[in-house]
Amino acid sequence: MKRTAEASSSWLRGAAAAMVLTFDVDAESCVLAEGKHYAQHPGVLSHQAYGPRVGVPRILRMLADLDVRATFFVPGATADTWPDVVTSIVEAGHEVAHHSYSHRRLVDLAPDEEIADLERGLEALGRLGIKPAGHRSPLSSPSERTASLLAGYGFQYESTLMDDDRPYLLETDRGVLAELPPHWTLDDFAQYAYLPDPSIGQVVESPRKALEVWASELDAMRRYGCLFVLCCHPFLSGRPSRVEALRELISRALGHGDVAVLTAAEVAARVTADPLIDIRPHNSRRTAATNQLTEAS
Amino acid sequence: MKRTAEASSSWLRGAAAAMVLTFDVDAESCVLAEGKHYAQHPGVLSHQAYGPRVGVPRILRMLADLDVRATFFVPGATADTWPDVVTSIVEAGHEVAHHSYSHRRLVDLAPDEEIADLERGLEALGRLGIKPAGHRSPLSSPSERTASLLAGYGFQYESTLMDDDRPYLLETDRGVLAELPPHWTLDDFAQYAYLPDPSIGQVVESPRKALEVWASELDAMRRYGCLFVLCCHPFLSGRPSRVEALRELISRALGHGDVAVLTAAEVAARVTADPLIDIRPHNSRRTAATNQLTEAS
Amino acid sequence: MKRTAEASSSWLRGAAAAMVLTFDVDAESCVLAEGKHYAQHPGVLSHQAYGPRVGVPRILRMLADLDVRATFFVPGATADTWPDVVTSIVEAGHEVAHHSYSHRRLVDLAPDEEIADLERGLEALGRLGIKPAGHRSPLSSPSERTASLLAGYGFQYESTLMDDDRPYLLETDRGVLAELPPHWTLDDFAQYAYLPDPSIGQVVESPRKALEVWASELDAMRRYGCLFVLCCHPFLSGRPSRVEALRELISRALGHGDVAVLTAAEVAARVTADPLIDIRPHNSRRTAATNQLTEAS
Amino acid sequence: MKRTAEASSSWLRGAAAAMVLTFDVDAESCVLAEGKHYAQHPGVLSHQAYGPRVGVPRILRMLADLDVRATFFVPGATADTWPDVVTSIVEAGHEVAHHSYSHRRLVDLAPDEEIADLERGLEALGRLGIKPAGHRSPLSSPSERTASLLAGYGFQYESTLMDDDRPYLLETDRGVLAELPPHWTLDDFAQYAYLPDPSIGQVVESPRKALEVWASELDAMRRYGCLFVLCCHPFLSGRPSRVEALRELISRALGHGDVAVLTAAEVAARVTADPLIDIRPHNSRRTAATNQLTEAS
Repeated sequence: MKRTAEASSSWLRGAAAAMVLTFDVDAESCVLAEGKHYAQHPGVLSHQAYGPRVGVPRILRMLADLDVRATFFVPGATADTWPDVVTSIVEAGHEVAHHSYSHRRLVDLAPDEEIADLERGLEALGRLGIKPAGHRSPLSSPSERTASLLAGYGFQYESTLMDDDRPYLLETDRGVLAELPPHWTLDDFAQYAYLPDPSIGQVVESPRKALEVWASELDAMRRYGCLFVLCCHPFLSGRPSRVEALRELISRALGHGDVAVLTAAEVAARVTADPLIDIRPHNSRRTAATNQLTEAS
Repeated sequence: MKRTAEASSSWLRGAAAAMVLTFDVDAESCVLAEGKHYAQHPGVLSHQAYGPRVGVPRILRMLADLDVRATFFVPGATADTWPDVVTSIVEAGHEVAHHSYSHRRLVDLAPDEEIADLERGLEALGRLGIKPAGHRSPLSSPSERTASLLAGYGFQYESTLMDDDRPYLLETDRGVLAELPPHWTLDDFAQYAYLPDPSIGQVVESPRKALEVWASELDAMRRYGCLFVLCCHPFLSGRPSRVEALRELISRALGHGDVAVLTAAEVAARVTADPLIDIRPHNSRRTAATNQLTEAS
Repeated sequence: MKRTAEASSSWLRGAAAAMVLTFDVDAESCVLAEGKHYAQHPGVLSHQAYGPRVGVPRILRMLADLDVRATFFVPGATADTWPDVVTSIVEAGHEVAHHSYSHRRLVDLAPDEEIADLERGLEALGRLGIKPAGHRSPLSSPSERTASLLAGYGFQYESTLMDDDRPYLLETDRGVLAELPPHWTLDDFAQYAYLPDPSIGQVVESPRKALEVWASELDAMRRYGCLFVLCCHPFLSGRPSRVEALRELISRALGHGDVAVLTAAEVAARVTADPLIDIRPHNSRRTAATNQLTEAS
Repeated sequence: MKRTAEASSSWLRGAAAAMVLTFDVDAESCVLAEGKHYAQHPGVLSHQAYGPRVGVPRILRMLADLDVRATFFVPGATADTWPDVVTSIVEAGHEVAHHSYSHRRLVDLAPDEEIADLERGLEALGRLGIKPAGHRSPLSSPSERTASLLAGYGFQYESTLMDDDRPYLLETDRGVLAELPPHWTLDDFAQYAYLPDPSIGQVVESPRKALEVWASELDAMRRYGCLFVLCCHPFLSGRPSRVEALRELISRALGHGDVAVLTAAEVAARVTADPLIDIRPHNSRRTAATNQLTEAS
């Protein structure tokens, strides 16, 4: 396999690619954000509770077996509802990062609501002794204010935007954030999310197929010097056969010998310290695209 | 394969995992619950009638070939419409359990409607001499009252909630119920349900793929000491190639030598008698999650 | 493989299973039935015209290569728009049957509209010298009147209801019809239909996967003495790789040596003449199911 | 493999089939056409920006590795927003063609809007020194005026209609256009498009499966003398593993030895110069089908 230098890869420090394992511990928050009446729906709540109750402990054991560390994005509501589970993540040596308080779409919130939700999430994590270095916007829905807000609150990174598969720096009016781009391709929602009401998906792929999607992407990323940001949800990927697929994927990454398995904060620290990394002004393309198309019609 | 003790597995009595084969004999009820006008739609009715007419007898023969017993969740409306079919299930030595009368979503019913539907289901099964030990809420839609109601009516178990893959006891204000958790992953709806109107699904996966999903879950569950609750619908899984896939799945389970194939009632009896089993208060997490998120916005 | 006698299989005359290859030549009709404005949408019309223009001739050549005969269900509108194509089907020795005039849902038509559409379809086929022996209701949507109407007009069979995978006789107030049941499992819509507007499907499976679904069903049907009614649409299955998959499926059936490849009319004739065949009153289950559930709520 | 002469294949000049690789560089335009508010949605914009930012450069390198030329359909809005990217396509020796300005559905535009959008696209490409020979209607939505308009503006070909898998000439009231038919089967949208809001798809298939769909179609097309028009979107197919799947597909085509890999303009030139090619009046079938069905109801 020929390797192709596409951009500065100094942040890789000699590895062919890097892998960050992330888990969004949404629990009940992501269905309650679809409608408060789901709080009176024991079937739906039980579907979500599987994540913290069964999925997280099982995933922690698998990660311990393989001796790798991961990053868990935790909504404040999860921290308040399942504090022991969140504490167990920290105690196992993993990173916990911010994932909003209520898992509502940030782009739909008024400016003061977005700030209140962000602060409430910080407080909830803070009660468990956690000061998060990073953030992921729920449902891939940052507002135009989110990046600047995060920089202002001292966050070091965001892992939300999908316009690259290598990390870069995002320049905002309140400072610089590292961006560690995820993608739907590397998200277990597209493989496993099945729930009729609220309708969050209609697929139950085999773990072998999900593994094929992810492993082929990892393999190809080694050619291009990319950052593989896997995003899994314990209520989906905590099922037995899916944990085993993750075990196989990580084992494969470790077996390659040239893939650095890092936490998100570790990548962000490398990126922030790297003088060669790409710095991009936030929202610049939005302006160009909007201008063209607003004039168009 | 390393085995990991996650929770008390005394109910397994030495097996690595247990399998419960369940069949929801919805027949016409699940489409008529979507709209009474489907009663004038012979195409839709015929699609559903395939279940009791062709699927059930074929599944019964396959189970007899393999000498295993299963649990059939039967709506009262099916018992009234297809009494001979339901009687044939009992005569073949299988368990018949309650699956509501009309297959409407319980969470949408008023309290007196839910009680009336439950009692009407009991009466319909009773006319065939069946006193069910267990219950499954249709469409994964129990109300907040369902568990307590079931305990009050003397049911021993429910197989609806999805917050675990091992059985546990559910504590209600009218007594304790065993919960035998199913999951969409182990449901044939996600693999085979295709009907445009009413729209119940858009997939026709190959039986080989469904078998891959289910067999890989069964295999991994042996590592974790789980309860494999397969949920199939005779109008879907009664097709020839799908019955053969089930035959292969069960043969595989039997071949492992360490999987106990039990009826739901047998698992419930084990669980109820087990002093080490986890006892969980009903609806406790709902309160926590709701409180956090109600205050949040 | 053990064979299991489920029902009278005298109509099979010693074969293990029978295969009927059917092609619904919907062409433009099935999108225009979704909205007349699609008549001003060249992109959509071109997608549908692929069927008669390219798909049918290619399928005819493949069938000739294999020396098998098939049954083509042709809407009257297709016969009027593509008369040469329909004539070429007849000239190649295949059966042409009735598939409504306009491909509207029969269950949505008023009684006089249904009769007018049926007669207009007969006239359109009649102009090409075709007197159809059979009928398939478009979109699996017969009304409660359809079977009786067809018997009254002298049809010998219908291929619409899905409550069995073996043929049977349907008793109506105007006489008896053979029913040759199709199923979504054996329909190429579930494998290949992709069109965003009108939204007729969102899947493009590989021909290999479709072949796996169909071939595994055919194989299993040989155990159960079934009728394999494949339903393909030339605008979908006329694509090169899909024709090759059909070629492989039919070759496989021929290779088994115990599968009778027949036209729908040939099966209907066997069934009608068979004194052991099951005779079922039309709509009886509808009455039972409706009564139960109307009283239920 | 037997080859079957279906139509004049003189345009193939001895090859068994021809392959045209096309890339629709939609970038932000295709989501902004769904709603201008997406211009304030950084998550969605980033998902689309992946195409020009990462996908196009990576695809250009892959094409250079294999020494083949492709055709890029570029909306004017993309040319205005990402001029350097579009220029890099031209500089690498590929063809750039017209794909509207704003990626709105042409069939929904008023006549003067359609003309204005077409001219604005010409101007945007013109500013980069590009005079396009061909056009693809966005979203497979040409109006009844589009073909005639394109002929009037001097375009040599359109690649939109799906009623064949071989090229032909389209006769309009302002002259003749070559039509190079694409199809959803050969479009990466059906394999990879996943975005919840705006909802553009819900699938993340493995590149291996997409390759299976496309390679089996290419293989079968060699039997029938077809034109394989692949349509990929850099925001989807620019992902590492998907670029590698394209590399494998093209390598396979080159390895066959009998597949001509051409640009769209090269095929159009061959077709226009071919005295044996099929010439079809535009919209003729529309009239026939509409007439039949308008009278029908």
